[in-house]
Amino acid sequence: MAASLHRRLPALPLLLLAAGGLRAAERSSSSGSSSAMEELATEKEAEESHRQDSVSLLTFILLLTLTILTIWLFKHRRVRFLHETGLAMIYGLIVGVILRYGTPSSSGHDKPFSCSQENRPFTTLLVNVSGKFFEYTLKGEISPGKIHNVEQNDMLRKVTFDPEVFFNILLPPIIFHAGYSLKKRHFFRNLGSILAYAFLGTAVSCFIIGNLMYGVVKLMKLVGQLSDKFYYTDCLLFGAIISATDPVTVLAIFNELHADVDLYALLFGESVLNDAVAIVLSSSIVAYQPTGENTHAFDAAAFFKSVGVFLGIFSGSFMMGAVTGVVTALVTKFTKLHCFPLLETALFFLMSWSTFLLAEACGFTGVVAVLFCGITQAHYTYNNLSVESRSRTKQLFEVLHFLAENFIFSYMGLALFTFQKHIFSPVFIIGAFIAIFLGRAAHIYPLSFLLNLGRRHKINWNFQHMMMFSGLRGAMAFALAIRDTATYSHQMMFSTTLLIVFFTVWIVGGGTTPMLSWLNIRVGVDPDQDPPPTNDSFQVLQGDGLDSERRNRTKQESAWLFRLWYSFDHNYLKPILTHSGPPLTTTLPSWCGLIARCLTSPQVYDNQEQLREEDSDFILNDGDLTVTYGDTTITANGSSGPHTATTSLDGRRTKSSSEEALECDLGAADHEVTSRGTRLVFPLEDNA
Amino acid sequence: MAASLHRRLPALPLLLLAAGGLRAAERSSSSGSSSAMEELATEKEAEESHRQDSVSLLTFILLLTLTILTIWLFKHRRVRFLHETGLAMIYGLIVGVILRYGTPSSSGHDKPFSCSQENRPFTTLLVNVSGKFFEYTLKGEISPGKIHNVEQNDMLRKVTFDPEVFFNILLPPIIFHAGYSLKKRHFFRNLGSILAYAFLGTAVSCFIIGNLMYGVVKLMKLVGQLSDKFYYTDCLLFGAIISATDPVTVLAIFNELHADVDLYALLFGESVLNDAVAIVLSSSIVAYQPTGENTHAFDAAAFFKSVGVFLGIFSGSFMMGAVTGVVTALVTKFTKLHCFPLLETALFFLMSWSTFLLAEACGFTGVVAVLFCGITQAHYTYNNLSVESRSRTKQLFEVLHFLAENFIFSYMGLALFTFQKHIFSPVFIIGAFIAIFLGRAAHIYPLSFLLNLGRRHKINWNFQHMMMFSGLRGAMAFALAIRDTATYSHQMMFSTTLLIVFFTVWIVGGGTTPMLSWLNIRVGVDPDQDPPPTNDSFQVLQGDGLDSERRNRTKQESAWLFRLWYSFDHNYLKPILTHSGPPLTTTLPSWCGLIARCLTSPQVYDNQEQLREEDSDFILNDGDLTVTYGDTTITANGSSGPHTATTSLDGRRTKSSSEEALECDLGAADHEVTSRGTRLVFPLEDNA
Repeated sequence: MAASLHRRLPALPLLLLAAGGLRAAERSSSSGSSSAMEELATEKEAEESHRQDSVSLLTFILLLTLTILTIWLFKHRRVRFLHETGLAMIYGLIVGVILRYGTPSSSGHDKPFSCSQENRPFTTLLVNVSGKFFEYTLKGEISPGKIHNVEQNDMLRKVTFDPEVFFNILLPPIIFHAGYSLKKRHFFRNLGSILAYAFLGTAVSCFIIGNLMYGVVKLMKLVGQLSDKFYYTDCLLFGAIISATDPVTVLAIFNELHADVDLYALLFGESVLNDAVAIVLSSSIVAYQPTGENTHAFDAAAFFKSVGVFLGIFSGSFMMGAVTGVVTALVTKFTKLHCFPLLETALFFLMSWSTFLLAEACGFTGVVAVLFCGITQAHYTYNNLSVESRSRTKQLFEVLHFLAENFIFSYMGLALFTFQKHIFSPVFIIGAFIAIFLGRAAHIYPLSFLLNLGRRHKINWNFQHMMMFSGLRGAMAFALAIRDTATYSHQMMFSTTLLIVFFTVWIVGGGTTPMLSWLNIRVGVDPDQDPPPTNDSFQVLQGDGLDSERRNRTKQESAWLFRLWYSFDHNYLKPILTHSGPPLTTTLPSWCGLIARCLTSPQVYDNQEQLREEDSDFILNDGDLTVTYGDTTITANGSSGPHTATTSLDGRRTKSSSEEALECDLGAADHEVTSRGTRLVFPLEDNA
Repeated sequence: MAASLHRRLPALPLLLLAAGGLRAAERSSSSGSSSAMEELATEKEAEESHRQDSVSLLTFILLLTLTILTIWLFKHRRVRFLHETGLAMIYGLIVGVILRYGTPSSSGHDKPFSCSQENRPFTTLLVNVSGKFFEYTLKGEISPGKIHNVEQNDMLRKVTFDPEVFFNILLPPIIFHAGYSLKKRHFFRNLGSILAYAFLGTAVSCFIIGNLMYGVVKLMKLVGQLSDKFYYTDCLLFGAIISATDPVTVLAIFNELHADVDLYALLFGESVLNDAVAIVLSSSIVAYQPTGENTHAFDAAAFFKSVGVFLGIFSGSFMMGAVTGVVTALVTKFTKLHCFPLLETALFFLMSWSTFLLAEACGFTGVVAVLFCGITQAHYTYNNLSVESRSRTKQLFEVLHFLAENFIFSYMGLALFTFQKHIFSPVFIIGAFIAIFLGRAAHIYPLSFLLNLGRRHKINWNFQHMMMFSGLRGAMAFALAIRDTATYSHQMMFSTTLLIVFFTVWIVGGGTTPMLSWLNIRVGVDPDQDPPPTNDSFQVLQGDGLDSERRNRTKQESAWLFRLWYSFDHNYLKPILTHSGPPLTTTLPSWCGLIARCLTSPQVYDNQEQLREEDSDFILNDGDLTVTYGDTTITANGSSGPHTATTSLDGRRTKSSSEEALECDLGAADHEVTSRGTRLVFPLEDNA
């Protein structure tokens, strides 16, 4: 047993944690022993390992730095065919090739240290080494073939992260930012359609892709291309993994060109929510474990259990996210924390992070909880924050999101060459491309047809084609696929997912601008303006009736479910959780008088008018939502106090300016650019 | 061997990394196996462990949230006797007591899995469990006594972090922020004294404490209070650990009361630099390994090797920090990255982090490198950033610093009860308190006497007493002490350090305000104003000669070394690295014409005048440094171009406003408060 015998690397050098841990462990292990030579050797080895970890992290930082500089160059030169995520992947690929073929492979493993334990592996092991006891932690199972693998390149293993890092460290800021930066007005206007696309659509897409892939797998078995087991549940899991769309590239271009806002809202809303659906769907499919002989056949009981798991995890995670959001809103409302933006920002960050932990501790899905927490924070807490904290929190999560996203994409590029267990099967890959195409088609077109039956403002053919086209796959599909690569089927799924992400980000992402013009989709839209009425959906009103036309349309557009929710939110939740809205004393029944007085902040009584306007200057598309529906749908029904009714026209005017202020805020980078004399307007990652 | 046999916890649940890792490992280990029951049990266990990790992290988040809310309450009610760090410790203590006595202790360990290996432990182990191979990583040595320890409380182990987490995750943001938020004007004016206190003073303090403690240890051996070995090098190490002062509480109060700026600069500068000195000093002492028989006696060769190690590590780390700072400055200068604040902030963050990794990869000390990187970034890069990025970077590191610092302090409180290897020796503790008192006295008074010989503006007795009093110990001493707690001596040192930190933060921190008034130290000072001349140091100038008096004084105050450096910085470094300063074509010799033209940014020629003023509005105490010395010391010597000379009076006026803008910027929280109608002015963590 040579010194290099068991030098398989701790797979987790990220953030130097494990590295530091290892080093400390070795340090403390050595400092207590007596043989100085031995000590020194261990210490040296630990330091060497620590150094290598630092180098591998430096590689990633170099990658990101290069990406940032090139992004700048691209933005500077107005290059649009390649998005920063695509760029990160290319750099990752290059570094991956260098690491793969440019670094020496270290010596191989000898035969394993075979102290047979009784029945199953312990998570921790104590080993007696010549009288001293050392503690070992379980890293994972290694297939017997791997043990004798001679090509064990140290550097390749160093740059391989633990898959759970993606789920526990990198995804949460991305997802939280998506929720926190949601443009609420257009999102809520299209809420029904978005929910339909995200839930129904993703489920349809998952099952269609799963079944098609099962056909492909059957075919592969027939022609002898399959060398190991590939079950139906594996195919369904692949369907769930690959159904998480991530049109970050498309949305960036939409943002830049100011493309149609409703289409933007549909795409963005769908992609945000279907990430959550895909995660929970894949957990449910993993939980689908039929009992009895044939463990991979259909079993009704297990199926309904899976459905139950889906509903349970989803609603539980939703609740967790909403609850922490509400708690944060209450804390920021009832303390004067806004006097100290640093404290406020720190609290906001901690509470948002605790959502993740809380959900994980309760057995729900942290990433999903974080999404709904983000939405709640944006809807309520954001209103209570001081102006400085608003920009602080937004900027903080923007930076975290940017770094995490580009890290994942550059890691993807790297993984194509450094991941050691790739299985590329041409039949499977071609089948997968066809399946995702058909799955996306079956997701968009029938659903759009059904939705159009109920929608006043139809989703026209060009929009449908664009949505069909924008089914890019990204970070979420990758994180789901890399989570489990232990078996043959999962390895093949991972390799295929990687190729699909590459293809969609580069080819589809690059083709967005031509596609937009080919489909005649409006660009340069003022987000405050409503789209021009189309013949098949609207009666055109002329003359001075523009205002009322718009109000009517707004009224017609909002579904009854949404109206109900809006009324509840406006009359009860907003006044309880924020300083805005009508006083609770007017909306709550009289027997709740005492509670209502306690919960309503004094500001609401004194300067409700003034607050509304003040708010609408800063609130993320919120003030205008209040106004858009506030005066027509709600106030006209008489369900809120007289205060609201009086602000209808003033409110409308405030709205436009608020929306502009918002756009200015969200697109600060754009304005920065123009103010410096360039005409290049290129949005950053605000809405991805 | 029961299921609970080796359930010693992975010591590193932080950020859920290790937890996620373990979970993934178990997942992948189980999904590949065939026995479903076994699989399920392992999966369940892993999930349970993951859940516990989440709960333990939630505990810390709860602690920090509570701390934040109480800080707010204290600030709101103008309570000054307890600083937020002291508060965090108290909450930590309470939770520690609850965890210690309120949670059930799990079952004990059986005898260890004793497969004796040949000679020394491997970092990774492959274990054959009934035909399947599992990989284990070394966590560290366990003393034989611990193995049979029945009181192995799961929760206590869950909340115990790997010591290197403090060094690799929590200290870097704290130290970087200290460097980045340095108030440069007063720092540079007192540079000589600060360097003397930090280097000479810390070394003196370390050796005096070390020798005194060696006496204490000898005494303990005599009276039979010492049950294991305690070497002279251990005592010296204790001296190094405990010499790192951290007057965060005192500085917060100084900041709040606007106490004397020079005293502030001396204390802040010393504490920032002596952290670096203490780290490197302790590494050098660990590196002191005499050869031959008596391995703990004095050995001249080993001593000089240690001195060499000190110098090598210190200068290497300094270089690393300075180089990455300079690279960042060049990148931000020569690209138009400032058009995209998000990219700029991300780049700034990545480059600053890479300093740490680069230093660690080269075998230097990352924390020290990060400090000098912070100073360089503040001095050069900051000037090149866009206005938005300036506030973004400052706020980002402010939040990170705040969270990290309060986390460390609450962990300290927790550790008093949850750390399992405490050794409290009353003799050692009393000896340590006396030693640090004498060490601080020997550090401050003789050095101040010597410095006063050379200083125009003397450090008077009251200042010296205040500096003596402000020798609080904090995060750095804790991090150094917890780094190695494997032996008896180190455990005793750790427990003693913990008590010293508690005592100094609570008692000394709480006594700062009374002490200030008792020592008649000026409060409410306008930081722009110079202190009133004292009789023993200055000739008083009256009448309209105020300006020239001040200029003269400034000239006299700056030492020749500093003048030299300033001239070099102003004429060469600033023009190369930033957009300010005189054009290089005028300062460099004529044969460098081409290079000079390439390096000088076009802005410098066109609108040098305008730029100076523009800069001085935003640069962190930088514009005024340029001016304060620019017109007298440098320009009068004719070493810079005519452009500089013309700005003397204008510049002076700009200075005041720039300093005000800066103070406003740094103390944004204060202004926030006053603008909201309260009169409470309480600084946040800006300068700690």
